[in-house]
Amino acid sequence: MRVNGEITDRISALDRGLLYGDGLFETLAIVEGEPQHWSRHMVRLTQGCQRLKITAPDVEKLLDEVRACCAGKTSAVAKIIITRGQGGRGYNPVDTTPTHITQCIPWPEFPLENSEQGIVARVCDLRLASQPLLAGLKHLNRLESVLARAEWTDHAIAEGLLRDNQGHYIEGTMSNLFIIKSGQLFTDPLQQCGVAGIMRDIVMALAEQRGIRCFLRTIDEPQLKEADELFICNSLINIWPIRCVIDRGEYPVGPLTRQLQQAIKVI
Amino acid sequence: MRVNGEITDRISALDRGLLYGDGLFETLAIVEGEPQHWSRHMVRLTQGCQRLKITAPDVEKLLDEVRACCAGKTSAVAKIIITRGQGGRGYNPVDTTPTHITQCIPWPEFPLENSEQGIVARVCDLRLASQPLLAGLKHLNRLESVLARAEWTDHAIAEGLLRDNQGHYIEGTMSNLFIIKSGQLFTDPLQQCGVAGIMRDIVMALAEQRGIRCFLRTIDEPQLKEADELFICNSLINIWPIRCVIDRGEYPVGPLTRQLQQAIKVI
Repeated sequence: MRVNGEITDRISALDRGLLYGDGLFETLAIVEGEPQHWSRHMVRLTQGCQRLKITAPDVEKLLDEVRACCAGKTSAVAKIIITRGQGGRGYNPVDTTPTHITQCIPWPEFPLENSEQGIVARVCDLRLASQPLLAGLKHLNRLESVLARAEWTDHAIAEGLLRDNQGHYIEGTMSNLFIIKSGQLFTDPLQQCGVAGIMRDIVMALAEQRGIRCFLRTIDEPQLKEADELFICNSLINIWPIRCVIDRGEYPVGPLTRQLQQAIKVI
Repeated sequence: MRVNGEITDRISALDRGLLYGDGLFETLAIVEGEPQHWSRHMVRLTQGCQRLKITAPDVEKLLDEVRACCAGKTSAVAKIIITRGQGGRGYNPVDTTPTHITQCIPWPEFPLENSEQGIVARVCDLRLASQPLLAGLKHLNRLESVLARAEWTDHAIAEGLLRDNQGHYIEGTMSNLFIIKSGQLFTDPLQQCGVAGIMRDIVMALAEQRGIRCFLRTIDEPQLKEADELFICNSLINIWPIRCVIDRGEYPVGPLTRQLQQAIKVI
């Protein structure tokens, strides 16, 4: 683990990342020591910094650090945190130098059946708050995710689906959600809440390439229930089909989900 | 500065306080080495921990640490941070031991005229998101406060007022807001957003004792404009009258504001 390039697992307790969650993070898959989809992650991180007016990190240096962190790992996870750093007067973020943290985490062994037979999901009680200024960002203010994930302990449930106050299905606690209806993909536009995942972008691009239309549309209760196929995705799990949403419905692991899973394997 | 009782200014970069803003904080005034309104702060902190299902700290030990931190200081600020600690699986908060951080900060010299002549405030563009599960808590997810405070740089403006999506006036970026109309106090109930400040509680209690009725009611645009008096409060500034809200109106520093300022001085 490195903090501002130095090998250490400690940061200043005055860092605004701790004090205010004033920062962003990225979680990347590492294969044979190399971060996957690096450019996409860095575009998101840089754009996130711009939106929060944090000076964006030097992407080349960051790549060197991630490679150094994860050297020799067959499969692992790299986590990058960028905070606004120390200083400012209270909330007022004046004259700060960002902190960057890079870390290599062991690959979490996900059950193979999750991607093959599909998962069981539940619908969370917590409703995501609408904040367009933060929507889409992978920022460090993640209490909603923590509270949503704490809603269940049953290991048979692999993910919780999150709705906004209007009842629109936005995402999973750690993933993005897609529904398939009549051969078309739908996912929330994430203009009010949610995290715009890198795998979500990739899924949309792969669908496009295969002539599958993908729409950024809100997903309401009837649309979820009547979907032909349902899946979640993120940079680590790729695609997990949803075979059951508790109290909502059962879904087949259908041909489009399989096609997209296959497409991701070969990129 | 102490982290889990040890004198250090560094914490683990794996702490959930940094990773997710998974924690709470308190900011207390220190007078002659003693924290002010200790019990009220500890009630709020303990209740906040209960709501987030974080094991509440040992309040007696915390008091010892704050006293040790701030020993001999005529006036200073104590900051206490409680996080859920390290561990868990991703967002899932299993088997964690909370981290507690205590820190003594020099007293910020506020301009005397702020409390005497009153301040100029502005209305922030950012609208506070509605999240009843977090409303009232002084949690570490403070990106909204950071973005709101970054909206202006003019030193003549001492505070920014924050509205929710319905246009209700909730609070200031670092304070609570009261309006006075026809001899009665009004402040938002903070059921959807905002931080329930200790000085807000004290103001309400002092008003009550003096036979001034105080209502927890939403404050809309006309009510703000037509208020007889307006003030903000927090544990460090006590009460600052608002003499002007830019583009909204000018307000006298009226008798009830003065009475409450006086009342706080003698508790």
